[in-house]
Amino acid sequence: MANADCVGVRVLSLNCWGIRYLSKLCSQRYQMIAEMLCKEEHDIVLLQEVWSEKDYLYLKKKLASSHPHSHYFKSGVIGSGLAIFSKHRIHDPFLYRYSLNGYPYMAHHGDWFGGKAVGMAILNIGGLIANIYVTHLHAEYCREKDTYLAHRVVQAWELQQFIRHTSAGADVVILGGDLNMHPQDLGNRLLRSYTGLRDSYLEAAQFDGCENGITLIADNPFISKKELIPFEKGIRIDYILFKGTSKTNIYCDFMSTTKGSVPDHPFPYSDHEALTAQLRLKSSVAAEAGGDKQPTAQDSPAGKLAELVDIVTEARTEVKVGLHCAERMRYTAARTGVMGLVLLFLELAIAAVPCFALGPEQPFPRTSFYLLAALCFAILLSTTLLYIFYTMELKALQGAEDQMRLAVGSLQEKLRGFPSGPPHNAPLRPPEGEKPNALEPEE
Amino acid sequence: MANADCVGVRVLSLNCWGIRYLSKLCSQRYQMIAEMLCKEEHDIVLLQEVWSEKDYLYLKKKLASSHPHSHYFKSGVIGSGLAIFSKHRIHDPFLYRYSLNGYPYMAHHGDWFGGKAVGMAILNIGGLIANIYVTHLHAEYCREKDTYLAHRVVQAWELQQFIRHTSAGADVVILGGDLNMHPQDLGNRLLRSYTGLRDSYLEAAQFDGCENGITLIADNPFISKKELIPFEKGIRIDYILFKGTSKTNIYCDFMSTTKGSVPDHPFPYSDHEALTAQLRLKSSVAAEAGGDKQPTAQDSPAGKLAELVDIVTEARTEVKVGLHCAERMRYTAARTGVMGLVLLFLELAIAAVPCFALGPEQPFPRTSFYLLAALCFAILLSTTLLYIFYTMELKALQGAEDQMRLAVGSLQEKLRGFPSGPPHNAPLRPPEGEKPNALEPEE
Repeated sequence: MANADCVGVRVLSLNCWGIRYLSKLCSQRYQMIAEMLCKEEHDIVLLQEVWSEKDYLYLKKKLASSHPHSHYFKSGVIGSGLAIFSKHRIHDPFLYRYSLNGYPYMAHHGDWFGGKAVGMAILNIGGLIANIYVTHLHAEYCREKDTYLAHRVVQAWELQQFIRHTSAGADVVILGGDLNMHPQDLGNRLLRSYTGLRDSYLEAAQFDGCENGITLIADNPFISKKELIPFEKGIRIDYILFKGTSKTNIYCDFMSTTKGSVPDHPFPYSDHEALTAQLRLKSSVAAEAGGDKQPTAQDSPAGKLAELVDIVTEARTEVKVGLHCAERMRYTAARTGVMGLVLLFLELAIAAVPCFALGPEQPFPRTSFYLLAALCFAILLSTTLLYIFYTMELKALQGAEDQMRLAVGSLQEKLRGFPSGPPHNAPLRPPEGEKPNALEPEE
Repeated sequence: MANADCVGVRVLSLNCWGIRYLSKLCSQRYQMIAEMLCKEEHDIVLLQEVWSEKDYLYLKKKLASSHPHSHYFKSGVIGSGLAIFSKHRIHDPFLYRYSLNGYPYMAHHGDWFGGKAVGMAILNIGGLIANIYVTHLHAEYCREKDTYLAHRVVQAWELQQFIRHTSAGADVVILGGDLNMHPQDLGNRLLRSYTGLRDSYLEAAQFDGCENGITLIADNPFISKKELIPFEKGIRIDYILFKGTSKTNIYCDFMSTTKGSVPDHPFPYSDHEALTAQLRLKSSVAAEAGGDKQPTAQDSPAGKLAELVDIVTEARTEVKVGLHCAERMRYTAARTGVMGLVLLFLELAIAAVPCFALGPEQPFPRTSFYLLAALCFAILLSTTLLYIFYTMELKALQGAEDQMRLAVGSLQEKLRGFPSGPPHNAPLRPPEGEKPNALEPEE
């Protein structure tokens, strides 16, 4: 345990928008980022969208003296894009890849190829064990009709699971990253309620940055304003969250974001703003008795538990919607595959019956014949692959839904243990489409 | 903390070999398994290869009174095959999918479709928090030329990471499953050394079962003896491992395995034997002072640390071999793809030049022409998919290798902190093919 009473930690989080050859002014921006990091000397730097390892190695070289320790998390086809730079030695990095992360055929969105994940590292800061997490969730391309909502909710679910399960031995927990969720979005509420993580923007004693803490601002030259509609000024989707334990208090003294422009440079660091939080860790054995303990969902008062039941139920409903969608897509793939097969058999039947066979004198039908056969094969192959993919998506969604059902059961049981049942609107009957007798008391 | 001094826990682990329509006598065997589990009333039942959810639901129904709590872990295309049945309420189940798990085109081996993973559940046993893990690693199809060795080593690496990171809050840790590794195999040593998990077969005060604790025996009618060569009697690849903490001691009083035949039945439960461990948990605050503390790698004496450095270095070498192999495979895929593309361009060139064009009077060449075009497309498509797959494999292998390098560095640093450096044969120079200056001190 720390012998110092207070330890200060400065944390930066930035989505670097580092798609080589596609992101604008990529290398110039990395140069600016490296300069800024060297100068600012944050204790912990959490980066996202460092898609190229070469860029990570460039930063590593540039930050060799200011941040001697670093780790780059590899995942997916082009890497998770996650990197940690630190003044403190990085122990035991560990990566959790989300089970769902978009669709490979949505290549223009690219998320699937990124292998989105949450990276974790353990640091020893002034004798305190700090679990540091960096993550980047699936992007939201259309808020009105968000086809990735179920995936992002499952990612938020797995993120909270991962943080809760891996942080039991930690004195403090810090999570930074691009969550691609607005402050009151379902996944965000799920994450914060379940883990007890606190938002540094809301907790900061002092704040200097964009209005409402937005991190994707309309004034950014790399952003098309159209994408932000109806949020005129911008949105807040990047976060630094934190929590202490019964033995350690953690405070956010100051928080800032960049405001688009960078002094002496014609363009900003990225399409996202960088976040900096000045945290103060205070280790005290007596803190347990103090009023500053950060409770997690496990030992929350009844009101919070009831709220959590509502949130998990809401998440479960969203996952169920995703399940129906995935089932429909799988069904469509199967049906199309069967149609391809039938077409192929028809063709083979035509070829087998000589009177229907197309003579060499008819060049056009013969061409069509082979083209059709090729088409059939292409349909069969692609629908088979899609069927396999959708089955995996279904399994992952079902798995998350099972765990959420179990969680609601556990929370409700805890809630029943409270002397006076608080009013809350959590549905005690199982959500629609569920056989009530298949639910309880098992699982 | 427990107020009872001792708590007994009976744990069963069984690979059920439950591939519907392929595994022999599947439903009859599930019936036998359900009967046995009902009768024996183990506290915790850890099952693997329950590939069909229908079979899980069958067991759930049958065990409703003996094991009211259960969880089925869903993953991959056909499910992870992992299930937990318990007398104690299951809290917070969590699944970690291994980043590597064979190849989808090796469909006859099937491992990839299973989405191998480690499932975790938290139980409260007599006031003690028990973290229960169930897993099934990639099978070994040929011991002499094991093409999946790197994948299995990475799985063992991720398994030990997952257990260490998630068990900080646990009083006891129990892992059961089919590790597909012999007791002295690299992955097994890695797992046990790093986590401090102890083998119930080796630790049991009393043992009743097959010779040498083997769990895949030559006498089993479902096994072809040929597969076991050169191990005449059989091999030990299923395990129940456990460890306590500074606050809780754990002992294995008795261990048993089934011995192939089942009384009153003409065939055994599965192609694997079932393992049962009778564990005794003893919670005592004073235990820390006792000699029975189970140290993990983190606080081991120098000799153990040195051994661990050797093991991680060995694992790293194995991962590097896997890396070279994956690189070669990706290169082959790329080369074949380019050849397919060149062939396609050649064809198009032929079609474009009328003097080379094949007239309608030559039916055979025209047929060949279209067949060749279809072949080119098929080559292009499959090599593209393979290239993507191998890139993902490479990323995962590189990620594991990075983490292992970091781990060796951390361990060696710890080792240097010991007053008298013990003799050990860990190579302090980086393994071959490594730029020494790329290693230290970063990462």
